[in-house]
Amino acid sequence: MSANSTWFRYCQYLVSDRQLGFSLDISRVRFNEADLASLLPRVEAAIGAMETLERGAIANTDENRMVGHYWLRAPELAPSAEIAADIRQTQGRIIEFAKEIHEGVVQGAEGQFQFLLVIGIGGSALGPQFVAQALGSPLDEILPFFIDNTDPDGIDQVLGELDGQLGSTLVLVISKSGGTPETRNGMLEVQKAYQAAGLNFAEHAVAITQDGSKLHQTATSENWLKTFPMWDWVGGRTSVLSAVGLLPAALQGIAVEDLLAGAAAMDRLTRITDPWKNPAGLLALIWFHIGNGQGAKDMVILPYKDRLSLFSRYLQQLVMESLGKELDRQGKVVHQGLAVYGNKGSTDQHAYVQQLRDGIANFFVTFIQVLKDREDPSLEVEPGITTGDYLHGLYLGTREALGDNRRDTITITIDEVNGRSVGALIALYERAVGLYAELINVNAYHQPGVEAGKKAAAVVLELQSLVLGHLKGLSEPQTAEQIAAGIEQPDEVEWVFKILQHLAANPSRGVVQTTGDTPNLAKFRAVS
Amino acid sequence: MSANSTWFRYCQYLVSDRQLGFSLDISRVRFNEADLASLLPRVEAAIGAMETLERGAIANTDENRMVGHYWLRAPELAPSAEIAADIRQTQGRIIEFAKEIHEGVVQGAEGQFQFLLVIGIGGSALGPQFVAQALGSPLDEILPFFIDNTDPDGIDQVLGELDGQLGSTLVLVISKSGGTPETRNGMLEVQKAYQAAGLNFAEHAVAITQDGSKLHQTATSENWLKTFPMWDWVGGRTSVLSAVGLLPAALQGIAVEDLLAGAAAMDRLTRITDPWKNPAGLLALIWFHIGNGQGAKDMVILPYKDRLSLFSRYLQQLVMESLGKELDRQGKVVHQGLAVYGNKGSTDQHAYVQQLRDGIANFFVTFIQVLKDREDPSLEVEPGITTGDYLHGLYLGTREALGDNRRDTITITIDEVNGRSVGALIALYERAVGLYAELINVNAYHQPGVEAGKKAAAVVLELQSLVLGHLKGLSEPQTAEQIAAGIEQPDEVEWVFKILQHLAANPSRGVVQTTGDTPNLAKFRAVS
Repeated sequence: MSANSTWFRYCQYLVSDRQLGFSLDISRVRFNEADLASLLPRVEAAIGAMETLERGAIANTDENRMVGHYWLRAPELAPSAEIAADIRQTQGRIIEFAKEIHEGVVQGAEGQFQFLLVIGIGGSALGPQFVAQALGSPLDEILPFFIDNTDPDGIDQVLGELDGQLGSTLVLVISKSGGTPETRNGMLEVQKAYQAAGLNFAEHAVAITQDGSKLHQTATSENWLKTFPMWDWVGGRTSVLSAVGLLPAALQGIAVEDLLAGAAAMDRLTRITDPWKNPAGLLALIWFHIGNGQGAKDMVILPYKDRLSLFSRYLQQLVMESLGKELDRQGKVVHQGLAVYGNKGSTDQHAYVQQLRDGIANFFVTFIQVLKDREDPSLEVEPGITTGDYLHGLYLGTREALGDNRRDTITITIDEVNGRSVGALIALYERAVGLYAELINVNAYHQPGVEAGKKAAAVVLELQSLVLGHLKGLSEPQTAEQIAAGIEQPDEVEWVFKILQHLAANPSRGVVQTTGDTPNLAKFRAVS
Repeated sequence: MSANSTWFRYCQYLVSDRQLGFSLDISRVRFNEADLASLLPRVEAAIGAMETLERGAIANTDENRMVGHYWLRAPELAPSAEIAADIRQTQGRIIEFAKEIHEGVVQGAEGQFQFLLVIGIGGSALGPQFVAQALGSPLDEILPFFIDNTDPDGIDQVLGELDGQLGSTLVLVISKSGGTPETRNGMLEVQKAYQAAGLNFAEHAVAITQDGSKLHQTATSENWLKTFPMWDWVGGRTSVLSAVGLLPAALQGIAVEDLLAGAAAMDRLTRITDPWKNPAGLLALIWFHIGNGQGAKDMVILPYKDRLSLFSRYLQQLVMESLGKELDRQGKVVHQGLAVYGNKGSTDQHAYVQQLRDGIANFFVTFIQVLKDREDPSLEVEPGITTGDYLHGLYLGTREALGDNRRDTITITIDEVNGRSVGALIALYERAVGLYAELINVNAYHQPGVEAGKKAAAVVLELQSLVLGHLKGLSEPQTAEQIAAGIEQPDEVEWVFKILQHLAANPSRGVVQTTGDTPNLAKFRAVS
């Protein structure tokens, strides 16, 4: 071993698994082992707590649910034979159905399915989108499209791309609860497009949802092509290796067995009880050290590989929804979290590495380095130098430049982007997030904070109905204040105004703004 | 005026311009006017300083350059008749060239151009990508693709999409300096693809670069279709309304006059000297107030419109590269910056609004609300309720939920996403960033921190050549330490190892790892 300190630290702290083609390097984070000594027993305890979880303990106490995404890639660990059988049977059905689609046994009205339209949001979109980009190619069996919002124009854009092709488009509606309004809306809009094209939607539709949900009932009563299950022991943000992620991937032609095998291998690696040898334990430990256990530094994710540029979006949900909590498990106010952003290197070097190197030191970077450049040999862009050498050199150079200015960086290295490594990355972060949640003592498996916005949105929609009803009875235009008073909602003038402004901007809604350049002077009336 | 305080504040602080279809609402940021009193004169001074800049002062003292992106949409303000003529002539040439392409006067080897391949990075990609997504549609004259990195596999994916279509693909190589290695590499790879397809690259290629640059020389000597200028008074991150952004937009069929008119209108609005009436001044003021003038809170950008989901990536460069500085203008160490992230609502509500509402309060949100839902009338997803009503309701609901938990939010409202509003958004943030830089006393127009990484990358590439040369002379495999010693770079063992590991993962590079499971034991040799 050389006395060279970067090399010494690199060799000392590297955790690698050559069979999996994976390593984690924390040597460029500033720490001494003494700094971490008091944390190590807590990480060990967290690893132990995770074992209890994996055996089927109730982790999501809000919803009285087990947390079992680990069983998806190791059904033999499931707490009951029934769950194990469910997992295996569903995976078998996914592979079988994809085969039927690829072989044209199941077809659309206009022949073999060539396009896939996934309708889902949150955990029902981010995982499938990440996997589709990471492992897809223009040569795939089926090209995937996504409707992941309730934006009418956004839906029009996607339907525009599929114009004239709906008869060879398989639609996958994904909603765990089966009642997500954005997804329901997307489904209704797409159904209408099938109708307008003279096509039977049900003959092109597949649902992924919980048994008995609203969506499940719709799919059954309308006789959709197929329904695949979601289980209450899989949370949305850890559902990518359930049917939610596996079915789109299998349809695209991706070997889902590899995703599962990679995740299973990473699960085994991250059950090791020694934190120094457990990459998820080490990540959780280092996150805690860097951010003082309070999320004081943002997590910047910089994969040096275009295929991985959606990983940060996937992680935004996994990390921030799991860790961003008001209360700890004893109900104490803690306002925890860990903000995640990033796209890809070296592209982002030309966007914000200026700030990372010179500016506010409120972040740490996780580089994801991919050793394999491409399928075929590369041309030389300079003597002996390829495009991939530049990508690699820019990663090393940027890491160095950040380190010189005392910015902490982590590097994850994978041999190549394939099913195994993508499955491994998913499993690594799932477990690291779970372990970190143990360290900061928050429940990683609920999301109490998302209800308030949904409830308030429902109130806005009710208010809109009142406003529209009131307008219809008016003979003269009124201001927002008058209308709010008229519907006995005087405290909601701002919402009333904003509702009116939105309706008036869409002529088919039958509301016009007649006068007034400022909100308090603007008057509105209904038109027929 | 009602006594309702949210309504009162909304009316009180709203800055709007009905003709432009724009308003800025800061009422949901917690402040009293007294809090801001001491800042107001500084904002006024910043607005004055900007006037000096617009008249042609040397703002980028590092590079002795003027900062003139404002002149692009108001050539009459340019400090010389020559610059004004340059701007007008270039805009005319862009429109003329796009017309020739659309009418098939200029064609590719296989007929009319149907695809556009933009090769650029940083400011030469983010603006064009944002505009293409915001204003494009599947019905565009030309469909745009982007190579924005030096990732060989990423390049292969894009070329795969264009497989068999290169003869009707127009390639736009954009590099201000003309020497950006990522862009040069992309160009060489694409040239090779044209060659392999038996096509003449030059007959499909257009350059946007500074006069006399390396790229300019290449384009001239190879007789490319056309060259458009970049000027030294336009920085990369504010170049979207130069040829960099206008040419791709015009080729796509977007009315670039609208982009320019919207930006010009916003420029006029943001020259108002009263900060309360100047939306850029108000943004700068509020950013300072929220983040204590030190970037203490991240800027989360949440447009409720799919078309605007790349705005945050565009802003990452504009904001973070401009503001993320080590030194203030007197050379004092300040480590400034403002971190930006976000994608789109309501999608992101299902990703990380949990953390925003409940978790660490290290951010503020800027909502972008778009009043117009879509071109055609919408179906009702519930009685009287459309998909767009949901999007609008979810925006209001989330804003409310965040406000209830004392999270600050700003709302920008635009009538619709069109050329004018996109131009206006670009101009708004350009000026807000400039004003905020004045407030925190940093130079917004240089990027000294990006050089270190590039230089270090060059050293890595040199080291790679030494390593490869050394390997060729070996009869026995050696460890990284031995090789580093052999090339007299004993301090660079880690880089040597990582270079070897990368080369060995790519079989055509002629390096194999023979033994060793850990970095210090691994041995490498050359193969022929």
